[in-house]
Amino acid sequence: MYAITIPQPGGPEALVWAEVPDPEPGEGEVLVEVVASAVNRADLLQRQGFYDPPPGASPYPGLECSGRIVELGPGVSGWAVGDEVCALLAGGGYAQKAVVPAGQLLPVPQGVDLITAAALPEVTATVWSNVFMIAHLRPGETVLIHGGASGIGTMAIQLAKAVGAKVAVTAGGPEKLARCAELGADILIDYRQQDFVDELRKATAGAGADVILDIIGAKYLDRNVRALAVNGRLAVIGLQGGVKGELNLATLLGKRAAVTATSLRARPLGEKAAIVAAVREHVWPLIEAGRVSAVVDRRLPLADAAEGHRLLELSGHVGKVLLLTE
Amino acid sequence: MYAITIPQPGGPEALVWAEVPDPEPGEGEVLVEVVASAVNRADLLQRQGFYDPPPGASPYPGLECSGRIVELGPGVSGWAVGDEVCALLAGGGYAQKAVVPAGQLLPVPQGVDLITAAALPEVTATVWSNVFMIAHLRPGETVLIHGGASGIGTMAIQLAKAVGAKVAVTAGGPEKLARCAELGADILIDYRQQDFVDELRKATAGAGADVILDIIGAKYLDRNVRALAVNGRLAVIGLQGGVKGELNLATLLGKRAAVTATSLRARPLGEKAAIVAAVREHVWPLIEAGRVSAVVDRRLPLADAAEGHRLLELSGHVGKVLLLTE
Repeated sequence: MYAITIPQPGGPEALVWAEVPDPEPGEGEVLVEVVASAVNRADLLQRQGFYDPPPGASPYPGLECSGRIVELGPGVSGWAVGDEVCALLAGGGYAQKAVVPAGQLLPVPQGVDLITAAALPEVTATVWSNVFMIAHLRPGETVLIHGGASGIGTMAIQLAKAVGAKVAVTAGGPEKLARCAELGADILIDYRQQDFVDELRKATAGAGADVILDIIGAKYLDRNVRALAVNGRLAVIGLQGGVKGELNLATLLGKRAAVTATSLRARPLGEKAAIVAAVREHVWPLIEAGRVSAVVDRRLPLADAAEGHRLLELSGHVGKVLLLTE
Repeated sequence: MYAITIPQPGGPEALVWAEVPDPEPGEGEVLVEVVASAVNRADLLQRQGFYDPPPGASPYPGLECSGRIVELGPGVSGWAVGDEVCALLAGGGYAQKAVVPAGQLLPVPQGVDLITAAALPEVTATVWSNVFMIAHLRPGETVLIHGGASGIGTMAIQLAKAVGAKVAVTAGGPEKLARCAELGADILIDYRQQDFVDELRKATAGAGADVILDIIGAKYLDRNVRALAVNGRLAVIGLQGGVKGELNLATLLGKRAAVTATSLRARPLGEKAAIVAAVREHVWPLIEAGRVSAVVDRRLPLADAAEGHRLLELSGHVGKVLLLTE
């Protein structure tokens, strides 16, 4: 088969479309013929040599895919050859075939085409596990979503609205904010022009955010803690703004608040399977009812993955960039 | 009545035994004739002018007491004049009489004398709410308790052992550590001589602590995060080592860990009542079965509260310092 390989870490040009051996499904795994994958920020880090795949994972990038099951490994039940699926991966989605632990498979939701389904696994699993399983966002609460126009952001807005929360977003510029508003965001903050702590305070009568979903990390840490409400929960899922930040524990203590940080990729199989099962139970019905949908910025050929990486680096996109095998 | 007042913030000598008006119980409150109170670190901060009572609370220090109910306010049921009780307070324990919201009353456990009962409310409520209700310590997990010989520490060791956890403690010097060992601590770390991150790593085959109960704050923040296990939870309840610390979010994210910070005093009545109810349900039976008990360093007359404050400032004590009204 062909896959996107990374012979040497570097810029987008480091991604090389090359012939590689077919992967083989082991115990509890299936082999999927990939129809589409999608670009995630973690892929950019992996390409630069900053985010090696966890032990046992494919060396190729790609944290999600859609396609058809072509082979079942030993001990797999509930799935059949020919099933159209999408899947959460620890790597290897940028390829014509991918091996998937059965617990990370999802059926293609009714009403979603097979290609678009590749946009769903990472954003739904990340948002559901952080905003709902860890931070326990409840109806009537306020959530602040940084990067509201990103793939994660566009899904987080819709899921938070679907459960009855009030949604604040940050994004860069009026066009992205307008897209966030179309998806349901109530409070729109242009981080280039406005201070999100002030804006959120004004929009919530001083209360702040019960939950914050953050992709920036260190650069926003102090402001995020200041933006939290009493009993607030800050869920950090990305470190685009650095690693080491100052934490004011007196502010945190005064609010009885919590800071959590997680990533999906390194979690053990059992935890991933539990998250995928929760997504199937809670998110899939919302997608099939048409209340929540994947936002796709564009579709590119997988062999042009470098172009997809450039798009994410420029941050001009809204939603997901898909990579198609043909 | 007489109470310990603070006419001017300052050192221990700022505490003045003076005649003051009797408090009156309002809706949902009772009046308790105080037999004993106890010294908490927060009282030292209040005496220095750094920790004002929350709105509506008594101006006198004292976050817990034991005694007898002498009057019921309107709307109180389940309690009667003459009942021997202990109570969690937002202030006012350093006095001959104290007003208590009924939800913060606890019966004196069987087998505990009325004076010693004053040592129980703060430590049981703080440990139960943080280690169990927030950090969810489970049987077989490892908990690191900083200040193992303190009032909080001595209760945390016993409760963690009672639920089947492995207990590591830090304390200053071999005598305090020996007392921690008597209470059940498995891993003894002298913070004056040893690095707790290294010692904990050695003692847990590299795994670290699933839960850390911390009273130091900023000075320990980075080391605490390094000492956490995967899925670890750091619960900060004191800031003796400062307020602003550096948080390495990459370390936190790699461990999928959480930092929480709380205080008990400022919580709304409903939350305090829920904690007190949980303490009565889960901790009181352990005390009545003799599996867990208050560790009391010494008893002093309430009028000599200054002496109790000096003892805590020198950190020579093990367990609680009680203050008796007569």
